[in-house]
Amino acid sequence: MKLQHIGEFSLIARLVEKFKQSEQVLIGPGDDAALVAAPDGDVLVTTDILVEGLHFRRDWMTPIEIGRRVAAQNLADIAAMGGVPTAVVVSVVLPDDTELSWVESLAVGMAAEVESVGASVVGGDVSGGERVVISMTVLGARNGVQAVRRNGAQIGDRLAVAGDLGWSAAGLACLQLGHGSPRQFVERFRVPTPPYAAGPIAARAGASAMIDTSDGLLADAGHIAQASRVAIDLDPDALNPSGALAELGRNLGLDALEWVLAGGEDHCMLATFPGNRPLPAEFRQIGRVVAGEPGAVTLGGQIPAVSQRGHDHFG
Amino acid sequence: MKLQHIGEFSLIARLVEKFKQSEQVLIGPGDDAALVAAPDGDVLVTTDILVEGLHFRRDWMTPIEIGRRVAAQNLADIAAMGGVPTAVVVSVVLPDDTELSWVESLAVGMAAEVESVGASVVGGDVSGGERVVISMTVLGARNGVQAVRRNGAQIGDRLAVAGDLGWSAAGLACLQLGHGSPRQFVERFRVPTPPYAAGPIAARAGASAMIDTSDGLLADAGHIAQASRVAIDLDPDALNPSGALAELGRNLGLDALEWVLAGGEDHCMLATFPGNRPLPAEFRQIGRVVAGEPGAVTLGGQIPAVSQRGHDHFG
Repeated sequence: MKLQHIGEFSLIARLVEKFKQSEQVLIGPGDDAALVAAPDGDVLVTTDILVEGLHFRRDWMTPIEIGRRVAAQNLADIAAMGGVPTAVVVSVVLPDDTELSWVESLAVGMAAEVESVGASVVGGDVSGGERVVISMTVLGARNGVQAVRRNGAQIGDRLAVAGDLGWSAAGLACLQLGHGSPRQFVERFRVPTPPYAAGPIAARAGASAMIDTSDGLLADAGHIAQASRVAIDLDPDALNPSGALAELGRNLGLDALEWVLAGGEDHCMLATFPGNRPLPAEFRQIGRVVAGEPGAVTLGGQIPAVSQRGHDHFG
Repeated sequence: MKLQHIGEFSLIARLVEKFKQSEQVLIGPGDDAALVAAPDGDVLVTTDILVEGLHFRRDWMTPIEIGRRVAAQNLADIAAMGGVPTAVVVSVVLPDDTELSWVESLAVGMAAEVESVGASVVGGDVSGGERVVISMTVLGARNGVQAVRRNGAQIGDRLAVAGDLGWSAAGLACLQLGHGSPRQFVERFRVPTPPYAAGPIAARAGASAMIDTSDGLLADAGHIAQASRVAIDLDPDALNPSGALAELGRNLGLDALEWVLAGGEDHCMLATFPGNRPLPAEFRQIGRVVAGEPGAVTLGGQIPAVSQRGHDHFG
């Protein structure tokens, strides 16, 4: 059945059924606004908008994958502040001829990812339109820990990462070359698996700055460096691709180091830590905060040979 | 200058400049998430998505008007829970050839409306796309008063409204007939003026249910009646158009009562109040909660002659 035959209110009712409400939800879907617990006396909030053709393709991904992916990249932004997601609102623009089953599967995918971190989809909106557009806003709690910003990195801090850098770009390269494998990389591109728990762990361990890698390591390290008015030097040895990632690069004749340095959408937690205490087990050191031109990112003291620019949605 | 010549990061930097941050904003734009005070230990959240051509037209409204309008209808949802808006995140899809000045004016309009209620735009996202799409999420505080839902109306309660019913539909009718006046109605269609303060006032006065009129009086009274499992009987005398609205109907040869009963987007506060204490000064009685088929809305005991259905964005 297509959306034009079901009507807006029925569609919303069917979608709301997919979303379980946690005990943090004091008033759920169905009123003019939802009411969500904010135990810290404050609330984290982040938002993203994704457009079919630019951010996702219906012919490359199932609706469940798209739903999980959209949720994962938004939830990761709360983790990157050291927070835990509590609630999500989502709005979707849908062409009239969209199959109801596609939209329901999209909701199922979102619900799965959102519920995996203990949060709930508490509200949303739908509209007609020519192309699918998905806009998600996530609320989160600090749970008593101070939120970690981008601007706190100090010279001498260690730069560390939790998660697998370059896997999403590797998976995208496979798909672009018409390969559906190796699955470990292709699946990671389709649905990122941000190490959510590493965000609050870094915050409790005293991380001085944090971001999730959505634009690529060079760009996102640059965001920390710029906001903190410092430079960052990456460690070539720590970043040198190895194992299956290096093998895939060799097999495809592509530079796996470029995936690691410039590939986006891994949603790793990238954080700086002061002092010399051991890093949390989830993190491995990949560089140092150094003196230098604010915002500069080098690799073993050299300007990296790959593009530093993140994806620009205009021009 | 068009967006394709400025780039995403520069665009965001220019937009962020338009938004003043109130003292409720603990971390503002520029990090992975913002942090906003939630003094009640919980937070209201509501979201809407608007699509060019369906919800607004760039040839009928200035970007400042569109920005104010989008903000007004979202902020009204927080007021309709009895809350006060604290923070807003907004995402916008923009065609590459959009003029930067258009986008900046959109932001100025949003900022004006958002700041008029003491809230701040704390974050957002932009993307390319074929048509303008605007998605806004608003957070709000109860400020110690219990949130007012749709489902609390009891038989015997009075139904009352704050704001001007039918003015937006009257303004739309003028524009559709090619008239730019009377300005009081046309401007109300372009930019609704929700009686924000009436929401918390109703909550403090013990309103048993509340909604803002976005789909039209019959539809929105129906939403309260349905959620509360009661019927509502509207008072024909209280709703009979008078003054300038009645005169406009006569001049255009249109039924002004239909604007009052079925016109959408007035964003009036529609609430039910128990007992016989005087209503707050902002409200006037327009009906009663009665026994009957759950969800039914009648006018002087009769089924109204106009359509009860709100606008459906599909089909």
